[in-house]
Amino acid sequence: MQHPLRVGILGATGAVGQKFIELLNGHPWFEITALVASERSAGKKYIDAANWMAETPLPANIAEMEVQSLSPDLDVDFVFSGLDASVAGEAEEALAKNGIPVISNARNHRMRSDVPLLVPEINSSHTALIEQQETFVETGGFIVTNPNCSTVGLVCSLKPLHDRFGLKRVMVTTMQALSGAGYPGVPSLDAVGNVVPYIGGEEDKLTTEPRKIFAELVDGKLEPIEVLISAQCNRVPVVDGHLECVSVELNTPAAPAEVRAAFEEYVSPIAEMDLPSAPSKLLHVFDEPNFPQPRKHARLENGQSVSIGRVRECEVFDVKYVALVHNTVRGAAGGAILNAELLVRQGYVKRKESAVHA
Amino acid sequence: MQHPLRVGILGATGAVGQKFIELLNGHPWFEITALVASERSAGKKYIDAANWMAETPLPANIAEMEVQSLSPDLDVDFVFSGLDASVAGEAEEALAKNGIPVISNARNHRMRSDVPLLVPEINSSHTALIEQQETFVETGGFIVTNPNCSTVGLVCSLKPLHDRFGLKRVMVTTMQALSGAGYPGVPSLDAVGNVVPYIGGEEDKLTTEPRKIFAELVDGKLEPIEVLISAQCNRVPVVDGHLECVSVELNTPAAPAEVRAAFEEYVSPIAEMDLPSAPSKLLHVFDEPNFPQPRKHARLENGQSVSIGRVRECEVFDVKYVALVHNTVRGAAGGAILNAELLVRQGYVKRKESAVHA
Amino acid sequence: MQHPLRVGILGATGAVGQKFIELLNGHPWFEITALVASERSAGKKYIDAANWMAETPLPANIAEMEVQSLSPDLDVDFVFSGLDASVAGEAEEALAKNGIPVISNARNHRMRSDVPLLVPEINSSHTALIEQQETFVETGGFIVTNPNCSTVGLVCSLKPLHDRFGLKRVMVTTMQALSGAGYPGVPSLDAVGNVVPYIGGEEDKLTTEPRKIFAELVDGKLEPIEVLISAQCNRVPVVDGHLECVSVELNTPAAPAEVRAAFEEYVSPIAEMDLPSAPSKLLHVFDEPNFPQPRKHARLENGQSVSIGRVRECEVFDVKYVALVHNTVRGAAGGAILNAELLVRQGYVKRKESAVHA
Amino acid sequence: MQHPLRVGILGATGAVGQKFIELLNGHPWFEITALVASERSAGKKYIDAANWMAETPLPANIAEMEVQSLSPDLDVDFVFSGLDASVAGEAEEALAKNGIPVISNARNHRMRSDVPLLVPEINSSHTALIEQQETFVETGGFIVTNPNCSTVGLVCSLKPLHDRFGLKRVMVTTMQALSGAGYPGVPSLDAVGNVVPYIGGEEDKLTTEPRKIFAELVDGKLEPIEVLISAQCNRVPVVDGHLECVSVELNTPAAPAEVRAAFEEYVSPIAEMDLPSAPSKLLHVFDEPNFPQPRKHARLENGQSVSIGRVRECEVFDVKYVALVHNTVRGAAGGAILNAELLVRQGYVKRKESAVHA
Repeated sequence: MQHPLRVGILGATGAVGQKFIELLNGHPWFEITALVASERSAGKKYIDAANWMAETPLPANIAEMEVQSLSPDLDVDFVFSGLDASVAGEAEEALAKNGIPVISNARNHRMRSDVPLLVPEINSSHTALIEQQETFVETGGFIVTNPNCSTVGLVCSLKPLHDRFGLKRVMVTTMQALSGAGYPGVPSLDAVGNVVPYIGGEEDKLTTEPRKIFAELVDGKLEPIEVLISAQCNRVPVVDGHLECVSVELNTPAAPAEVRAAFEEYVSPIAEMDLPSAPSKLLHVFDEPNFPQPRKHARLENGQSVSIGRVRECEVFDVKYVALVHNTVRGAAGGAILNAELLVRQGYVKRKESAVHA
Repeated sequence: MQHPLRVGILGATGAVGQKFIELLNGHPWFEITALVASERSAGKKYIDAANWMAETPLPANIAEMEVQSLSPDLDVDFVFSGLDASVAGEAEEALAKNGIPVISNARNHRMRSDVPLLVPEINSSHTALIEQQETFVETGGFIVTNPNCSTVGLVCSLKPLHDRFGLKRVMVTTMQALSGAGYPGVPSLDAVGNVVPYIGGEEDKLTTEPRKIFAELVDGKLEPIEVLISAQCNRVPVVDGHLECVSVELNTPAAPAEVRAAFEEYVSPIAEMDLPSAPSKLLHVFDEPNFPQPRKHARLENGQSVSIGRVRECEVFDVKYVALVHNTVRGAAGGAILNAELLVRQGYVKRKESAVHA
Repeated sequence: MQHPLRVGILGATGAVGQKFIELLNGHPWFEITALVASERSAGKKYIDAANWMAETPLPANIAEMEVQSLSPDLDVDFVFSGLDASVAGEAEEALAKNGIPVISNARNHRMRSDVPLLVPEINSSHTALIEQQETFVETGGFIVTNPNCSTVGLVCSLKPLHDRFGLKRVMVTTMQALSGAGYPGVPSLDAVGNVVPYIGGEEDKLTTEPRKIFAELVDGKLEPIEVLISAQCNRVPVVDGHLECVSVELNTPAAPAEVRAAFEEYVSPIAEMDLPSAPSKLLHVFDEPNFPQPRKHARLENGQSVSIGRVRECEVFDVKYVALVHNTVRGAAGGAILNAELLVRQGYVKRKESAVHA
Repeated sequence: MQHPLRVGILGATGAVGQKFIELLNGHPWFEITALVASERSAGKKYIDAANWMAETPLPANIAEMEVQSLSPDLDVDFVFSGLDASVAGEAEEALAKNGIPVISNARNHRMRSDVPLLVPEINSSHTALIEQQETFVETGGFIVTNPNCSTVGLVCSLKPLHDRFGLKRVMVTTMQALSGAGYPGVPSLDAVGNVVPYIGGEEDKLTTEPRKIFAELVDGKLEPIEVLISAQCNRVPVVDGHLECVSVELNTPAAPAEVRAAFEEYVSPIAEMDLPSAPSKLLHVFDEPNFPQPRKHARLENGQSVSIGRVRECEVFDVKYVALVHNTVRGAAGGAILNAELLVRQGYVKRKESAVHA
């Protein structure tokens, strides 16, 4: 790609925004040209506005960039939104109205009927919904979202089972990492040596988002699948990586070995697209009885794959297993970047000839 | 009780043995008169043989006692067994044969048809099985066991549902404390900032033990109940307290409010027995959405009660909730002590006139 | 004590306030009759205003009490102040002016020349300073403070060395618990699997407070001692208990055995006063090479004693050792309660005949 | 380098051995051709013999290699020794006698007068000692060691102060990571939410090793420097990264700003050698008051640099600061690899024409 696309980061000083900056460092297609944050940060150098938390150093060019306040006029080709849900709804709409594609990690527009809830390996055809967005028709701007972090781990692991056997009922209990709550997030006195058996709103997302993600696009409308899902979500003292214990009842019963084969043999439908952030394998299956573990395996394939282990018979449903997803990479910023890469390949995101309102 | 019963602790230097010693300190009925450990420790003062790990200081009288090696001739009224499963099987049998009641925390004899798998609040009538034990008829010695630590939390919470609505299918995912693995147990490099999604043998115990615990005693034989149970067990970096996410399908469907009422209104059938270690309430129901938590609530009622929270509708079964049990107290040594107290009240354990058949 | 003294808790909903409530539950002399918090909490029942965090349940009588807003007119015999430093200064003065003794944990008045910085076992005579307080003369109200939590561990351990050998230079590095930062306090992403080598203002307190605590009262004025102290303070992922590595240069050089003896033989000068919260021994000396440890020993003597271990020769100074103090008990609320008990015995705090100035 | 040097790893299945394998993956000069472990592992494929613990996957070519038992006849150009101290002494000598250079992380030969205790940036000239080793003269084999992990962090930070101001007295308190104890290492019940104020043998190493590392080589003999060092070592629940709180008395007193400048301006004497594993800067100075932190900064420069922060005046000595070293990289395997690279450049380690004694 001769000229990189110019990217803006919304919510650039927050936890998700920082992850976008970290993961885009050295990206072959995208170049950050705008850092957007709240009024309080606007006008400051990024290094002064942000409390940089990553284990890798803040890239020098980003450190010196001036933070802008939120405005629909951004001289960029598209934006990644790491905005908080309290402001994301209107802000993202305003940008789309102004002709800017918004690749969002926020939950606000996820369930809108004309907004794709996109996981490239699962439902890349859902991007056709973009063309139903009023703003796309008028200005070329639009909104695409990625699912909640724990939903991503679940649906990636369920995808081969959905394809081969059909999903009837799913029980999932999550053990979610602290980084999923942002910063300052969970107080340490609640986290150290403890488990908090509650994450506000999380169980609902796990119940509803998969139905849309697996939906079929029929006559331009998504038809959600029928699967019943029940979730129990817990916060555990882990830094990165959501672990999920899943039990599945299939439409066509299958033995654990068949299910394991479905995981192992799963070939990503976007494999041939050569997207820079796509993992070499979406699913990694472990046979060691005590794997995967968040601290040891969340970073596999730079955090873009999902690890699966302990595939075995369920005494109540057909099969049970454990899935692990890196919540801030594949489950958030990394997933959004992969979405943007898909949209570039599909032609929805492209280099503008000139600045937005030049 | 004028003269306390004389108690021996088997496996006295191990993690469970130490917990017996800690919990029996100041016990109104029982006095430790024998500490039994491996050959390596025998002959030493307890303080020199054991690596005392409790947060409360080692009682001075215990510190100076001499550790004995295992022998069927112990001058005690009964023993608590905190032996490792690798030696508990034969050792406990030998003692029972020699006229000594064995109140065991080991798993070896749990599923024997003539051995009660006892939780006083649930199946106190199962102690009648003792009379079927050959040793009891011949010498008065016998074996009684308590369930696996995570089983205890599950069955205590299921008891009122079993009574009122009947149990059909149960899914449980556990997040278990490090102390459940004993000492040295889990290496810190596997524990800190991590979850290990596997505990050897644990899921089987959760699947099978409850059927025996809830069994009906018909014509002197236990008839296990039919419930289907599927468990996924995880080790989390928590010191004490197993947290369990449970989903239940009932024989008679019930709304969450009815289920919550069943928990709340549950009255222990042993309440009137006035056992020293019985909790004032077996079940404590929390309405705060983020409770119970292991670090904050495991010690409720000195660790002898089970905490329940988040009672709500399950999208797949009837109801789901969270249960918390102190794994080394109610789930191990404390449960065994309560068993012994019940057996005293029932007359199975009593003061011997003289040393064991000396 | 026939009629308990009526106590108010300032900052009752905060972390320190909660600890006062927890520790005063069942206190033989003191009864909480007023709970004071911010405007936001005033008028609510305590159980609704506070996010109760202790491992012991909230006492039922406290749960139902109505929280009051801060006012100099409180119908109490004295107050404990767990106020934040941002408001403690003026609020405590106003109460003292209004005739109410203020036993404060806040740092604001600690270094005032007429305010005792009190550790009963070290400087109980400093309470004579109270009589120099203008408010005491006019209304009977006054202010007494306890030191910073890490200072308490240091000075209690230094006391016998000061008495026997004299202190010349002290180096101390602390590893401080998360509870010292209150709630929400340290974000979990900074705490889990990490150490933060900085605690704002802490090192200064460790350097300056001991000089005042060990000061001699000469002609009604405190003469600080000359000792040089350098501190490095770190936050570690421990819930309760500050551990301190101390190296001391003595005025009269002494061998480790002599220093150990000084610790061991130390007899508290308030031993005969029979104060309810005084530990049986102020200092507990461990000879195990790896003791004391925060999780295992911070609760010794209900958290009111200081544990010492690893007394050995220092290659640079005379001696080095490790000290452990329970930061929220002895180092905060528990220390303040012991101060109040001393002041009752000394007659400075007493039951009022009627309401403050009714 | 046209032909890579053939390397053997002693203790290949242990924690240090695994780190050697991880760090040598893709190394431009060195190729692992022999994996040596105990009899129990010999003959197995590496993947079956080792419990691979790194966060990066086991390299495929290593996984399939057969583990050999220890023997002085190894067909390699040199070895890295990650042997346990209980066997390293004799084993390393035998190999050296047989003509094989041994770059060892074990402590056994560190203080031998003809063995360099090597940190390339500090004392690269000490490698001349090799020529005094009997084995070197006879067979070309020799032993070179790197210091204890916490010593490395200390001496790297002290180096610029030694050069500019001279060292008189040093006090250091360490907070050391769990990985320093190997695997299984510290039991999790001692680690989680706790600090253990003791690490066997560690304080002695910190006291004695720096004197040798900073020694001058005069007439072929090392003259240790005179500095007095006192250390207190603690184990904290951190995975990787030893944090050290250091106070220094200098021969020529200097203000904190001068000391900070000495750190900042320090230029490694081996900078121009272009060693593959050398960090771009040995020392990274932070000005943020709460940096460096183990979880965030231990991996800086792939773990090969030392981070320094909080440079400030010491009330007792001249200056105090905090240093952070990645204990298993710079403090162990990574330091040894850098040593080997230096020895290649200096000509002590080179490609053999044929197998050892073929």
